[in-house]
Amino acid sequence: MMNVIIKKLFEDKNLYTEKTISVNGWVRTIRGSKHFGFIELNDGTYFKGVQIVYDDSLSNFQEINKLSIASAITVIGVLILTPDSKQPFEIKSAKIVVEATSNSDYPLQKKRHTLEYLRTIAHLRPRSNTFSAVFRVRSLVAYAVHKFFQERAFIYTHTPIITGSDAEGAGEMFKVTTLDLLHLPKTEDGKINYSKDFFAKDTNLTVSGQLEGEAFALAFKNIYTFGPTFRAENSNTARHAAEFWMIEPEIAFSDLNDDMKLAEDMIKYIIKYVLEHAPEEINFFNSFIDKELLERLNNILNADFSRISYTEAIDILLKSKKEFQYPIKWGADLQTEHERYITEEVYKKPVFVTDYPKEIKAFYMRLNDDKRTVAAMDLLVPGVGEIIGGSQREERYDVLVERIKDLGLDPEDYWWYLELRKYGGVKHAGFGLGFERVIMYLTGMGNIRDVIPFPRTTGSAEF
Amino acid sequence: MMNVIIKKLFEDKNLYTEKTISVNGWVRTIRGSKHFGFIELNDGTYFKGVQIVYDDSLSNFQEINKLSIASAITVIGVLILTPDSKQPFEIKSAKIVVEATSNSDYPLQKKRHTLEYLRTIAHLRPRSNTFSAVFRVRSLVAYAVHKFFQERAFIYTHTPIITGSDAEGAGEMFKVTTLDLLHLPKTEDGKINYSKDFFAKDTNLTVSGQLEGEAFALAFKNIYTFGPTFRAENSNTARHAAEFWMIEPEIAFSDLNDDMKLAEDMIKYIIKYVLEHAPEEINFFNSFIDKELLERLNNILNADFSRISYTEAIDILLKSKKEFQYPIKWGADLQTEHERYITEEVYKKPVFVTDYPKEIKAFYMRLNDDKRTVAAMDLLVPGVGEIIGGSQREERYDVLVERIKDLGLDPEDYWWYLELRKYGGVKHAGFGLGFERVIMYLTGMGNIRDVIPFPRTTGSAEF
Repeated sequence: MMNVIIKKLFEDKNLYTEKTISVNGWVRTIRGSKHFGFIELNDGTYFKGVQIVYDDSLSNFQEINKLSIASAITVIGVLILTPDSKQPFEIKSAKIVVEATSNSDYPLQKKRHTLEYLRTIAHLRPRSNTFSAVFRVRSLVAYAVHKFFQERAFIYTHTPIITGSDAEGAGEMFKVTTLDLLHLPKTEDGKINYSKDFFAKDTNLTVSGQLEGEAFALAFKNIYTFGPTFRAENSNTARHAAEFWMIEPEIAFSDLNDDMKLAEDMIKYIIKYVLEHAPEEINFFNSFIDKELLERLNNILNADFSRISYTEAIDILLKSKKEFQYPIKWGADLQTEHERYITEEVYKKPVFVTDYPKEIKAFYMRLNDDKRTVAAMDLLVPGVGEIIGGSQREERYDVLVERIKDLGLDPEDYWWYLELRKYGGVKHAGFGLGFERVIMYLTGMGNIRDVIPFPRTTGSAEF
Repeated sequence: MMNVIIKKLFEDKNLYTEKTISVNGWVRTIRGSKHFGFIELNDGTYFKGVQIVYDDSLSNFQEINKLSIASAITVIGVLILTPDSKQPFEIKSAKIVVEATSNSDYPLQKKRHTLEYLRTIAHLRPRSNTFSAVFRVRSLVAYAVHKFFQERAFIYTHTPIITGSDAEGAGEMFKVTTLDLLHLPKTEDGKINYSKDFFAKDTNLTVSGQLEGEAFALAFKNIYTFGPTFRAENSNTARHAAEFWMIEPEIAFSDLNDDMKLAEDMIKYIIKYVLEHAPEEINFFNSFIDKELLERLNNILNADFSRISYTEAIDILLKSKKEFQYPIKWGADLQTEHERYITEEVYKKPVFVTDYPKEIKAFYMRLNDDKRTVAAMDLLVPGVGEIIGGSQREERYDVLVERIKDLGLDPEDYWWYLELRKYGGVKHAGFGLGFERVIMYLTGMGNIRDVIPFPRTTGSAEF
């Protein structure tokens, strides 16, 4: 007899119709009466559960009738089509085995809970409709990312998590150490003696795999990273986590235009994949989390993303006559309110903004001929603002050394990164996509804590 | 005109024959004479390069003739089949654009380098034949892992990297902190005041995502993790890295037999995928790294993995009359020499060893009815020894609490893990596969430092 996951029943019900099968799952609801009853059984593989019908011909009918929510059972029975009912089929049970019971104080009873409360039971919340959907979508999107890049022969590159000093100049990092904090080894001048530490140097958690990714792109042409990154920013917002996953493709023999094309193709591929593989979940989000979700996703699929320069964006904002909280000025970074105005009100679709002033961008971005701007791009999308940041990289050895010095950094710290420019260091470009931002965008979930299985944020590293 | 990666040329040469195409790549070798020359061009997408033929009809013939190794070029030309030559085709160039030159002190000249030396230039070594092959295989295997699990509707779960106290009891961990080590906040009794730290508690890098994985398996039935894990072990061996990637599936409604079946299916799937998708690389490894590689991999594909208990394994070892370095005794852990004897000399194929003494295994493994052993399994493979370790998990609340206490751990620290047993905590099982061990096994590479892009080991976190 076949043991079947519930997802398969919904995908291919005809294969199982009138057949005896077994299914496993947890009781979501149970309505028992004197001689028969109904169970909604969910196994987590699909958004919906399957209806189980049982009656007093079962030897353990009384036991079944008293099952509480979240009990685990195995049902052996026949799948029957029910074209006149709400659900397309049900299973008429011949046997039900109770695999594990559930205490009556189970926190996820039928009533609705706040997202805040559910965060305190992160070990149980994936059993709720919302989080079950969120984390299935998260898994699908991760796979879509891999599929997209592997189909294009990109090499998946695991860049290091533990790194030496803050190479990207990105600021607040977590220190990694095995030193005994109560008995720290010191140097003669009173500093920490990191030569005694595990790696014989000061180490941190990575903020980006880009620099190492560039080394690999200059060997494999096209690569991507997909791994955890860390920011020790003390910002307690709905959009910041201390630990999040990032996707960073890097493409050699490619310029900023190729980079934008790749970003657009990738975003559309991911959306298409999710709409195809998680329609139930997306419908649920569209009904209960964000009523404009489906429309927004379809808009993106059908749009040609616009491209404007930062300078043009500033002009548009200045001419808008709109009152913004933050002032508009060439040289200042765009704030979310500015980004959203451009993508939502002016273009009404995704917009790449390119060629930012060099002062507000990182040292590795390629200096444009105007010497004032760099070949950077941010992708702005309606509903969020910036979702991708990328650039063509500075491939000219001398220019790169200058930029490093300008920022008060030490070229010595970048010896290998600079060396890449000496040996076939062809033009190349890349971007970073915050994975959680994408999941928020695809689900409509408003807080990053609700798209990460066990989120790590300021003051919180539970579970 | 089509820009084509070299991989595509080899996969589908007929599509491009007699057509004008453009290819990018780096010069691997160049042989120029007075009126013509040959370049072996490699773009990293394929093990082999493509031969470029050029002659003095090119306006920049002199420039091309003087190109040094590792220069980056774009070639526009016609693909010509060369059935009588060593290589199946070549490109007769109409135009060659020099995209980036290379300094003459390029370290990767034709001569062979030691693997030790190549580790010191980890930013350049992926351009060598060996490492180009290793990291392409690494990428393919990672994808094969995802594909295997996604095809079976397993949910990819990102378990946290930063965790609270050492939940698995696995020992040496890296501390993660943002405290100023020179001005550490102390409590009244002289301890570190972690309430001032970023997460308001003492945190470490994860050694395993299993416990969190179990929470998700009890919501989604079948899940897998695939992420970095960390061990601060001071062991400077060829098989240990401080940072490595691990795959940990967890399956609910499943016992140890299901777990072994899953492991066997997964291993075979991965090997099959690599043999199909990287035949050139595997042939190279078989010729230059490990002459028994292909035979070993094919043996595994065709074998039914054996299953014996730890007690049977001890009997076999005792009866073997073989001299081992470590003594054989019921209750002692199997050493690599024992494992290899069993899998290589006795069974000559992969062997699952099950039901180990509880004293040498972790607290979460299910206690067998004999009360002396637990439902653990290790998969031993010829050439390596243990490659997978797994178990059925203790799902009985009271037994689990006892085991935690027996080991001197505090049940309070495991409140949520214990709670999973109260609410439909059905039988479940899982295993861990060290990703780098698999890559070593599939390539024959003998040192873990040579299968990780930028390895982190005792005393070393370069790049």
